[in-house]
Amino acid sequence: MIDSVDNVVTAAHAAAPSLEDLGRAGRARMLESVADALDESRSGLVEIAAEETGLTTERLVGEVARTSGQLRLFAEVLRDGGYLEATIDHAAPEATPPRPDLRRMLVPLGAVAVFSASNFPFAFSVLGGDTASALAAGCPVVVKAHSGHPRLSRAVAALAAAAAEGAGAPRGTIGLVEGREAGIDLVAHPRIQAVGFTGSLGGGRALFDVASRRPQPIPFYGELGSLNPVVITPGAASARAEALAAGLAGSMTLGVGQFCTKPGLVFVPPGRDLEPHLAAALAGHGPQRMLTPSIADAYARSMAELADSRGARLVFAADQGGDGLGAPAVYATTVSGLVEDPALLEERFGPTTLLVEYADEDELLRAIGLIDGALTATVHAEDDSSSRVLRALRDRAGRLLFGGWPTGVAVGWAQHHGGPWPATTNPLHTSVGATAIRRFLRPLVFQDAPASVLPPELRDGAAPLPRRIDGVLTVGAR
Amino acid sequence: MIDSVDNVVTAAHAAAPSLEDLGRAGRARMLESVADALDESRSGLVEIAAEETGLTTERLVGEVARTSGQLRLFAEVLRDGGYLEATIDHAAPEATPPRPDLRRMLVPLGAVAVFSASNFPFAFSVLGGDTASALAAGCPVVVKAHSGHPRLSRAVAALAAAAAEGAGAPRGTIGLVEGREAGIDLVAHPRIQAVGFTGSLGGGRALFDVASRRPQPIPFYGELGSLNPVVITPGAASARAEALAAGLAGSMTLGVGQFCTKPGLVFVPPGRDLEPHLAAALAGHGPQRMLTPSIADAYARSMAELADSRGARLVFAADQGGDGLGAPAVYATTVSGLVEDPALLEERFGPTTLLVEYADEDELLRAIGLIDGALTATVHAEDDSSSRVLRALRDRAGRLLFGGWPTGVAVGWAQHHGGPWPATTNPLHTSVGATAIRRFLRPLVFQDAPASVLPPELRDGAAPLPRRIDGVLTVGAR
Repeated sequence: MIDSVDNVVTAAHAAAPSLEDLGRAGRARMLESVADALDESRSGLVEIAAEETGLTTERLVGEVARTSGQLRLFAEVLRDGGYLEATIDHAAPEATPPRPDLRRMLVPLGAVAVFSASNFPFAFSVLGGDTASALAAGCPVVVKAHSGHPRLSRAVAALAAAAAEGAGAPRGTIGLVEGREAGIDLVAHPRIQAVGFTGSLGGGRALFDVASRRPQPIPFYGELGSLNPVVITPGAASARAEALAAGLAGSMTLGVGQFCTKPGLVFVPPGRDLEPHLAAALAGHGPQRMLTPSIADAYARSMAELADSRGARLVFAADQGGDGLGAPAVYATTVSGLVEDPALLEERFGPTTLLVEYADEDELLRAIGLIDGALTATVHAEDDSSSRVLRALRDRAGRLLFGGWPTGVAVGWAQHHGGPWPATTNPLHTSVGATAIRRFLRPLVFQDAPASVLPPELRDGAAPLPRRIDGVLTVGAR
Repeated sequence: MIDSVDNVVTAAHAAAPSLEDLGRAGRARMLESVADALDESRSGLVEIAAEETGLTTERLVGEVARTSGQLRLFAEVLRDGGYLEATIDHAAPEATPPRPDLRRMLVPLGAVAVFSASNFPFAFSVLGGDTASALAAGCPVVVKAHSGHPRLSRAVAALAAAAAEGAGAPRGTIGLVEGREAGIDLVAHPRIQAVGFTGSLGGGRALFDVASRRPQPIPFYGELGSLNPVVITPGAASARAEALAAGLAGSMTLGVGQFCTKPGLVFVPPGRDLEPHLAAALAGHGPQRMLTPSIADAYARSMAELADSRGARLVFAADQGGDGLGAPAVYATTVSGLVEDPALLEERFGPTTLLVEYADEDELLRAIGLIDGALTATVHAEDDSSSRVLRALRDRAGRLLFGGWPTGVAVGWAQHHGGPWPATTNPLHTSVGATAIRRFLRPLVFQDAPASVLPPELRDGAAPLPRRIDGVLTVGAR
């Protein structure tokens, strides 16, 4: 039985002070307990996930490890304490005007909403990066379950709530709601203070608008869509066409092409060196089950549009199979083709990519200028990469790859998963990596406060965390 | 002659790469040149400002020092380099899955818009904190001048552009537009990537909506309105009613009450100890010129509403003077009065405050629960402050003061000037203090990049700035 949105949000709101008071160490232990519980239940959960999503057991087992590893990373972030941005400016009574004692750190925003994604039933779902970073921040989370894996969502939510409460978290720390209307009500609920979202441009924009039009607008961190352009230079194409084709084939078909970082647009130099190798590399790939029937339908429609497009030329298509299935297809166009038919620049979720032949650097720059913001941009070059091209790509992406393929998103301190619109609604923040916690925190300054009311992190004396004191950053005893 | 919005924005957009390439050291020198130019032109500028705003010469001279000091603080922030959040995770080819080399830092957003405020013709205007932090970040700025001080805005913009260009900044680094329509066009312009705003709730909300409804929504950092609640405990009222009254009178009348941090709501314990002292402290304050005729009109209307309100009782009112003038007035109500008449909780820009008598802590908590977010909250207590009251205030404010008055906002590393809606549209960020720069930066990650394309801050080897390397924060050689 699923509770009403209002009940779940009210419980989350009520849990906020106790979750904050659990402190950094308490929340670190809570995250580790939840991670342990997830790992211990792995086989049963993977079985449900495989049934609901069609993803392979191997992939799902790896995704559970990624998800529990992510929870543990945030435990590490909490113990480190640098994320608090603790800053102390001692009083300067002799200054003109006299300066009071000011002590700043970040505090949790309150209860937040997280929308889980279809394509990562663990890592971007109930216990994914949005939830892990919000809980670490001290914000209770209400998750909107994805309709693609409802049983898994309920099982993970129950497990997480029990483990969190077992580790001292208050009731209401993790809640779950289901259904499209519930999602809208959740974003509109006055007690919700921020939203994390991963999904489609259309759905994400609609929810962003709900968040922005509230009487009290709230931050909406949405990851909505990305073409992940790849540039192959003439030097790279000459030197290693076969290896590039194999790498591209692997990246575009990973998870049946259902990754937000799938390379959707590949700029290739004159000559068609890559095409036969790409066709060969894809030849073994038959139709595979996609995440949901509606995703498969959208992919089929998208393939039909490309087939009808005057500007796109078929390079390779596997037998597409039947309902619910999708198989690799590659089309090619030219820079003029892109200019004439901007619809070619729409994201196509599934195992497909568009090759764009460019004649020279000026044409390449013109084409890059047509692309919206992206999560990633990739350059494959020999010694022939151009600083103008790098700058143009950099201005449109959150992660710039030199070699390799964008579909791997390592979780760590330096990762960034975000980018200019529509890759993310807010280009300042990330949904993956240690700094994802910043989305759910706001600064608070204590002025001339007695030590007794200050959080331990802001008191004078040695402290085991990074702090900036009177302008000088100190690493702190560890 | 004022250029079209499109021309000014186009010049700012074109300036962005060169301003970024000027580097941290180059932009620090640029900010110091601009600060020097401002200080050198002080007497002439103050004369214009006094004519246009009615503010005293003494106040304006101090404000110029604050403004040039703020520019110099951001030069220091640039030289420190910690704001870049430089983070290096070296490759871990042995990990499962193998981890690439990832190097993250913050990069400028692009051209941004800044709306100047009426009440600080220097410190929150053409060269105020929004502009200083955006330029430091590497973002060219287009300022929408405030109609309250147009000649000053033009003079400061010309001086700043000349000094910046003299220090190596590209043309277009600082631009100026004027007029209400220009402001709307500016926020809607596709080349503008963020907006800083200080002003009214109505105007700010309208522009926030423009920013949010764009095809590409952009961050809007607005500071819109704040009641700045003050709580006086019974212990404090008994111990020092006269001193508290004198402090309150000084804070609420500072700058003719035209500060966003003016204490607008003062919770006072039973007994009316404060009132005679407050009346005495205000007795010498006659009518003074307000910033603009429309601000004076709004203040007069607001005073008429209070006089007509059934829930508010007059404590003190000076002769209000005539057109364009405003003079102190204090009203009082009870917690039930606030509940019955929520209009009493509107911000009144001018030298007025509302005393709210509370019977006991429960009633006080109920009243605090009625208040929207605020920039500040202040407690005056002896040993009788309550942790429940502190928490309730903390949840509604960005700066929590223990003693003192909120109208002083020191500029430094630890300052925060922001708070939950409607104090600011985005509670994560500040418009005053070193961290204001974060509003105009986005993360960018380089994956497996050759050293030759990396910014110096992300290369291996010793570096004179704070960095987190493989999870460990290092302060860096200085």
